[in-house]
Amino acid sequence: MRKIEHIGIAVKSLEASRPLFEKLLGVPCDKVESVESEGVTTAFFNAGPNKVELLEASHENSSIAKFIAKRGEGIHHLAFEVDDIYTEIERLTGEGFQMIHEQPKKGADNKLIAFLHPKHTNGVLIELCMDQS
Amino acid sequence: MRKIEHIGIAVKSLEASRPLFEKLLGVPCDKVESVESEGVTTAFFNAGPNKVELLEASHENSSIAKFIAKRGEGIHHLAFEVDDIYTEIERLTGEGFQMIHEQPKKGADNKLIAFLHPKHTNGVLIELCMDQS
Repeated sequence: MRKIEHIGIAVKSLEASRPLFEKLLGVPCDKVESVESEGVTTAFFNAGPNKVELLEASHENSSIAKFIAKRGEGIHHLAFEVDDIYTEIERLTGEGFQMIHEQPKKGADNKLIAFLHPKHTNGVLIELCMDQS
Repeated sequence: MRKIEHIGIAVKSLEASRPLFEKLLGVPCDKVESVESEGVTTAFFNAGPNKVELLEASHENSSIAKFIAKRGEGIHHLAFEVDDIYTEIERLTGEGFQMIHEQPKKGADNKLIAFLHPKHTNGVLIELCMDQS
């Protein structure tokens, strides 16, 4: 894994949490982006080489809405940047990890992404991501 | 905030989780360190400019034991590296955030650390840390 690309935080309201994280991190929000396939609107903030991604559900069946209903607001996932997502999926599968996505798919921020199943990673939802640019 | 210094993950057993995270991250564990004042044993892994810190409770009254009893294993806190922890505590307090530690204290990995109260940060437990070396 090259680095922590971002940490994803589930929030009820971007309108409320965006200014909060601007004050917390001391930087303006970098960009807001909707990912319709995931039912989320995201807001990204830069923290040096890393990012913080706030995630707001765009409908009640979104995984983010379900997460907040079950656990409340808080850290939702941890994303690592990898050089080659296809090679990394193959390596991790060979090590016995289970992928939620065996084939990468398009995510926010112009990335190809794939999630690991948290039951094999101590309850941590882990995303692999690779820049498409 | 300069970067995400580390992400802290609460685990039941370092003996079980250490080899799991070595396989996941593709690197050996960098170091294991006990922090008696916190009732934890920690294991650090490098991921480029960032670290993953596994946290195992060393006694049943440890905050990590209580966290796992309540929420299960998973991400416990998010730590940001700052240039000057004293200035950052002053800035954040001025912005209306509430510190758990208004004065920094000695943490793992030769750092001065201070936590923010999660009730003002969307349920996310955030640590500030500054290298002492």
